[in-house]
Amino acid sequence: MMIMAQSNMHIILRLEINKQQISFGEIATSIGNAGGDVVALDVINEEQDTTIRDLTIKVNNKDGQETVTQAIQSLVGVNIKHISDRTFLVHLGGKIEVRPKLSIDNREELSHVYTPEVARICTAINEDPSLAHNLTIKNNAVAVISDGSAVLGLGKIKPEAAMPVMEGKAMLFKQLADINAYPLCLDVENTEDIIQIIKSLSPAFGGINLEDIASPGCFEIEERLKNELNIPVFHDDQHGTAIVVLAGILNALKLVNKDLSICKVIICGIGAAGISITKMLLKAGVKNIIGVDKNGAITRVENYENKMWTWYGENTNPNMEQGSLSAVIQDADIFIGVSVGNILQVEDIKKMAKNPVVFALANPDPEISPEKAKPYVRVMATGRSDFPNQVNNVLCFPGIFRGALDCKASIINEEMKLAAAKAIAATIPEDELNEDYIIPGVFNKSVVSNIKKAVVEAAHDTGVAKN
Amino acid sequence: MMIMAQSNMHIILRLEINKQQISFGEIATSIGNAGGDVVALDVINEEQDTTIRDLTIKVNNKDGQETVTQAIQSLVGVNIKHISDRTFLVHLGGKIEVRPKLSIDNREELSHVYTPEVARICTAINEDPSLAHNLTIKNNAVAVISDGSAVLGLGKIKPEAAMPVMEGKAMLFKQLADINAYPLCLDVENTEDIIQIIKSLSPAFGGINLEDIASPGCFEIEERLKNELNIPVFHDDQHGTAIVVLAGILNALKLVNKDLSICKVIICGIGAAGISITKMLLKAGVKNIIGVDKNGAITRVENYENKMWTWYGENTNPNMEQGSLSAVIQDADIFIGVSVGNILQVEDIKKMAKNPVVFALANPDPEISPEKAKPYVRVMATGRSDFPNQVNNVLCFPGIFRGALDCKASIINEEMKLAAAKAIAATIPEDELNEDYIIPGVFNKSVVSNIKKAVVEAAHDTGVAKN
Repeated sequence: MMIMAQSNMHIILRLEINKQQISFGEIATSIGNAGGDVVALDVINEEQDTTIRDLTIKVNNKDGQETVTQAIQSLVGVNIKHISDRTFLVHLGGKIEVRPKLSIDNREELSHVYTPEVARICTAINEDPSLAHNLTIKNNAVAVISDGSAVLGLGKIKPEAAMPVMEGKAMLFKQLADINAYPLCLDVENTEDIIQIIKSLSPAFGGINLEDIASPGCFEIEERLKNELNIPVFHDDQHGTAIVVLAGILNALKLVNKDLSICKVIICGIGAAGISITKMLLKAGVKNIIGVDKNGAITRVENYENKMWTWYGENTNPNMEQGSLSAVIQDADIFIGVSVGNILQVEDIKKMAKNPVVFALANPDPEISPEKAKPYVRVMATGRSDFPNQVNNVLCFPGIFRGALDCKASIINEEMKLAAAKAIAATIPEDELNEDYIIPGVFNKSVVSNIKKAVVEAAHDTGVAKN
Repeated sequence: MMIMAQSNMHIILRLEINKQQISFGEIATSIGNAGGDVVALDVINEEQDTTIRDLTIKVNNKDGQETVTQAIQSLVGVNIKHISDRTFLVHLGGKIEVRPKLSIDNREELSHVYTPEVARICTAINEDPSLAHNLTIKNNAVAVISDGSAVLGLGKIKPEAAMPVMEGKAMLFKQLADINAYPLCLDVENTEDIIQIIKSLSPAFGGINLEDIASPGCFEIEERLKNELNIPVFHDDQHGTAIVVLAGILNALKLVNKDLSICKVIICGIGAAGISITKMLLKAGVKNIIGVDKNGAITRVENYENKMWTWYGENTNPNMEQGSLSAVIQDADIFIGVSVGNILQVEDIKKMAKNPVVFALANPDPEISPEKAKPYVRVMATGRSDFPNQVNNVLCFPGIFRGALDCKASIINEEMKLAAAKAIAATIPEDELNEDYIIPGVFNKSVVSNIKKAVVEAAHDTGVAKN
């Protein structure tokens, strides 16, 4: 249930008050008579005759909000400048909390969870650090870490400003996979700092979810941490997207009855997500992938400043096709866009092989709008929730961490990611599969348990599980 | 209520199993028949004929535990090597959890707390970072940070091993003051690293509680962070102890009818706690403090390698008394020990002024045992919960942070600490005050609200409050 549906909701009204015409006491009385309770007050601006104040008012429900605002509107000398809306309201005071798992009500109970008895637990862990997995929160705790350098579509923002995304993620970790995730937004200067800080933080956590970190820094950070830590490190923007894309592609190909290994795939936008999707598809058996960025198709014959593009050219495009998106899309079976809005034309889709599969994942505007593409594609997916087949990372990160933590995996390796993608795809029974339903919904409760099972199995098969 | 009193408790039995004599299936069946449910199994050691396994078994209650263990004991070929006890059991999986404050049950709700709507919150905070205090967890979140360098009486232990103490602290923060505290135990090399890491972490937190960090590093870390961050930083081992000690002294002096300013005070043990207690007492108006460490009384005429002792000599001991504890304790009104057990003799107490006040805070063995001291002291306090007048930091940190966060203080200054001490003391009505009740109990619900009120007032008076 949302906080909005509960009693005791809070609204914030920004009031411009003419001090000659009305006193604050009269306003407060009026609010009180209307059933509201002023629980906080901030002076925003104070001048000779007028003052602007934010009033946080406790009301019983949505109707209570109406009653209070009407009462204020009827007063002379008060002007409501702003009423905080629902999205702002659910963020008041943050979206998560840290709670004791048991309450401490007397000295005897205190002595078990704190001094003096806690010393025995500390000593036991100090002698055998692996006990931290059982006797502290570690094995069910994930740090959700960002430096705010590439948040949503907003680019680089202040670390404080990235917190709402990380808190949202922490909510989803707990609700969907019962994992305790703590959001940490780092005020840092460089890649090396991020690496060292995360290494220092690792004793308290069983896993690290990197989030919204700009490329190319994100590659080095993840790679180094994977090598230097013995807990799973997972950059969700890269791998979460890649895993859900592969899941969708696997199901799309069931509909068009094609095999991955014979498909020609165009990936448009060769940043962090594009590279991770490519690696995932190569691992899954795709042979012919062509990456396209602003200079056209990436090939091994060109010299790129971007080291990742050099790697890309060497590992994809076996037929060394050159030219623009419009040129290389000829006879492609699959288009996957993680670039910018509206760069794919209907004419391009018409050049694709029979039964084209188009994943236009740019947000908020897809590479081609579903309305335009619809008549020419067989299966289409986007990153948006208002069209069918939404590619949403929420489908992946709770389950993949649940699996990794449950088997105490030292790493989330390619096999575990592949297993996660297959598990997501297999969540939709083949007889329910159709063009508008190749990716399960984020509230499908089977997703996490299916991924978890597959990931634990893959971890055991590849020898990275400790449990 | 403790987890132990609930149904569905878990016990862990370490079993040595002779594989020739009994199968695991037979053991599991026997456990099942006795009402237990094996929910986890770890192989500890596997040999030709025997195997050692840890079985986590869900039982209904303490009686269920008995029934299950008796059932196993009656089997041939199984030996119970170990049963995890209550303290270990309450630590299983950690003592805290991170939970969403509201649940997300459909796409619409998801869109408010996560993409796409969350972007509006991020943008608002990016434009005005002070909004992070209202729109993220920041203003009600405290990081409980240790490097494991001086944990309880255990000295330097691994950071993982310090986590149970920090988790216990996080429990108390929430239960007593509704503050979300997250435990972070840092794997770090030096003081500068700790400082830089904490600075980097600060966007997510409204306050920093430093914990169990060895001196002299703890001084520099706290001092630097106080100067370089604009959120409260508080080293509990120093100031928490000092505040509660002062609270106790204030009440003790009411009983003996002396004024702080005319008292001669001996502080024994001039480490982090001793120095902080001294500063607190000076701030409160004590004029004649003499610090004693292993070389005797600290004076301004001597040269010390320890810079803090040099400071100490310059700021205390106005009459430049020299010599051993036994020498300088002559005519002292108050003895405060934060040193080691059993170094204070009855003969020393006999030399003190009339109505001696003795705080023997060394743990687990006080500087003099209450039994021995009792006939010669008027008021006595210890650090132990099994004697009257326990000096316990739990009395201070929840309330002082509650106050600092509520008024968005940029710092916890000396005036706020003094206010906290007076508030703790005043929690006991004067007519209830007696030799065995000078410090309120840790479960006294008035303590946090009294401290909070006093701290907010002091923050406003000294101009460090933003709210």
